[in-house]
Amino acid sequence: MTALAGPVLADSVLPAEDGVRILDRRVFPHRRTWVLCTTVEDVARAIEDMVTQSSGPYFAAAWGMALAARTAVSTPDPRAAMERAGRRLVATRPTNNHIGEAVDLVLSGVDYRDLVGSARAAAAAADARYRERSRVLGSHAAALLPDGAALLTHCWADFYLIGLVEGMRAQGKDLSVFCTETRPYRQGARLTAPTLAEMGVPTTLVTDGTGAALLASGRVDALVTAADRVTADGHVVNKVGTLGLAVAAHAFDVPYLAMVRAPDPTTRTGADVPIEHRPAAELLDAAGVVDPAVDGLYPAFDITPPRFVTTVVTDRGPFAPTALSRYEEAA
Amino acid sequence: MTALAGPVLADSVLPAEDGVRILDRRVFPHRRTWVLCTTVEDVARAIEDMVTQSSGPYFAAAWGMALAARTAVSTPDPRAAMERAGRRLVATRPTNNHIGEAVDLVLSGVDYRDLVGSARAAAAAADARYRERSRVLGSHAAALLPDGAALLTHCWADFYLIGLVEGMRAQGKDLSVFCTETRPYRQGARLTAPTLAEMGVPTTLVTDGTGAALLASGRVDALVTAADRVTADGHVVNKVGTLGLAVAAHAFDVPYLAMVRAPDPTTRTGADVPIEHRPAAELLDAAGVVDPAVDGLYPAFDITPPRFVTTVVTDRGPFAPTALSRYEEAA
Repeated sequence: MTALAGPVLADSVLPAEDGVRILDRRVFPHRRTWVLCTTVEDVARAIEDMVTQSSGPYFAAAWGMALAARTAVSTPDPRAAMERAGRRLVATRPTNNHIGEAVDLVLSGVDYRDLVGSARAAAAAADARYRERSRVLGSHAAALLPDGAALLTHCWADFYLIGLVEGMRAQGKDLSVFCTETRPYRQGARLTAPTLAEMGVPTTLVTDGTGAALLASGRVDALVTAADRVTADGHVVNKVGTLGLAVAAHAFDVPYLAMVRAPDPTTRTGADVPIEHRPAAELLDAAGVVDPAVDGLYPAFDITPPRFVTTVVTDRGPFAPTALSRYEEAA
Repeated sequence: MTALAGPVLADSVLPAEDGVRILDRRVFPHRRTWVLCTTVEDVARAIEDMVTQSSGPYFAAAWGMALAARTAVSTPDPRAAMERAGRRLVATRPTNNHIGEAVDLVLSGVDYRDLVGSARAAAAAADARYRERSRVLGSHAAALLPDGAALLTHCWADFYLIGLVEGMRAQGKDLSVFCTETRPYRQGARLTAPTLAEMGVPTTLVTDGTGAALLASGRVDALVTAADRVTADGHVVNKVGTLGLAVAAHAFDVPYLAMVRAPDPTTRTGADVPIEHRPAAELLDAAGVVDPAVDGLYPAFDITPPRFVTTVVTDRGPFAPTALSRYEEAA
């Protein structure tokens, strides 16, 4: 592996001789535990078990396909085995497009005459491609923000946020960030806040419920989040809680920038996006509810209509949410 | 004592021969621990130590004054002793108007020819008065809601919520309730959800960040919360997180009912309300943040402007937030 220059979460899926090592984000930052996956099924289960999330499943899927190649190569039909492995990975988190993208990159990059070697090279290319696009995207987002910007972010915007911070610095701009806690898994408290602090950014944690008061206070220059998916007509799918912040930002005239590598031209509108619901028990456990008469409802994502989105920032620059068809023309 | 017909939180301050028993809300519902107070000083310390909160301090103060009478009666100046006891109770939580109200009711109700008996009767009257006003308020709120209403509530609306449930039932209406977790202290998960379940109301917990998605989904007929204070011009001061839910309710055409016994005519507008900020450490501890470079911001309340409030429900009926001056005329 190359030397680790960025924060630890920028290198949280590491290929190795004996498999793929995935940083366990469920216990990060309190413990730095790595889960070793020696088969693509291990990788799929790690994704399902939320060992990694956000961009993690992309990297895990790419390197998981490289692992699959090691087994597929000695089956009667290596191509069918690789495609089966890809479907297994895609099925882990149906709302997350990244997994399918990583799978497709590896599947289209393999040469069945040298399956193991070419799958590994395709996974490495997919890995590098994500980093470079995030860097470019972050720099586009930074260009929209003033020097000294105070941002509010939700959940964990991952490489896009890291790219944004690096972009601001490259452009000679200071920034500070308010992070929501992001219940129930507290990705804001556990991933975003420590990573920003690791990067030297002044970082303030708030509860999820405090976002609107902060946006009303005039202390925030922009709401900035990643998006798990942006539909062709500008609906932003992201971690549940984003919608409430976007609506409040709109009500109090704070711009909302949604960062996504590219809009999804195959998804026409928000109603076409299946929303993953996690088991109620995960929420009730996190909230300390023991009464069996109390139910829980835990959609993992919500959908923000374009009227509450100021700008969608992509690897090809910023677009109004109603003008995403221009993304293809910007190629 | 009379038989307990309602949920345990409706009878969480109980006068007894040996003193006053106060349910320890810090550990409820996981444990039902009662703190026995045998003197008014015990009661004052229980309030200061957050053994009880919300409406609890009102009841504790009323019955604390009855306890004070037992000692005051054998002092050279019983009236001075009672007034001293009242000042001690009011000093416990200076922003909580309820305590002063309970103290005043007992002080103005005592007859020094029968101090112990009359103080006890005055405390009982103050106790009954709060319940009756909450019952009336709850019944006014219920009258605004349809049969089968699905409500979203935030934090713990206490007797108003209990009154609302009883009002719905008295009016032959079913209801179900989504409760936010309410970070960082999880009053929604710990107080609201178990109490509604105890009352047989179908109850579903959501994270604070899920409120907007729920309001956008069409599954909620009304957002209903208590208010710590409502200003003369209709700004609603309540537990932080209320503003974001109210803004989302407004954006998705869901009515927001704020329940408060009476508007506060002495507070003109939202800008006149000092917002209590709790120590950042309380938030960071609850969120599991250990990195000393991460700061926290923890306003305990937020302020919802009247444009996001549909109706303020009081003990004299419902009012538009811009027509609260009519509350006095409705006496």
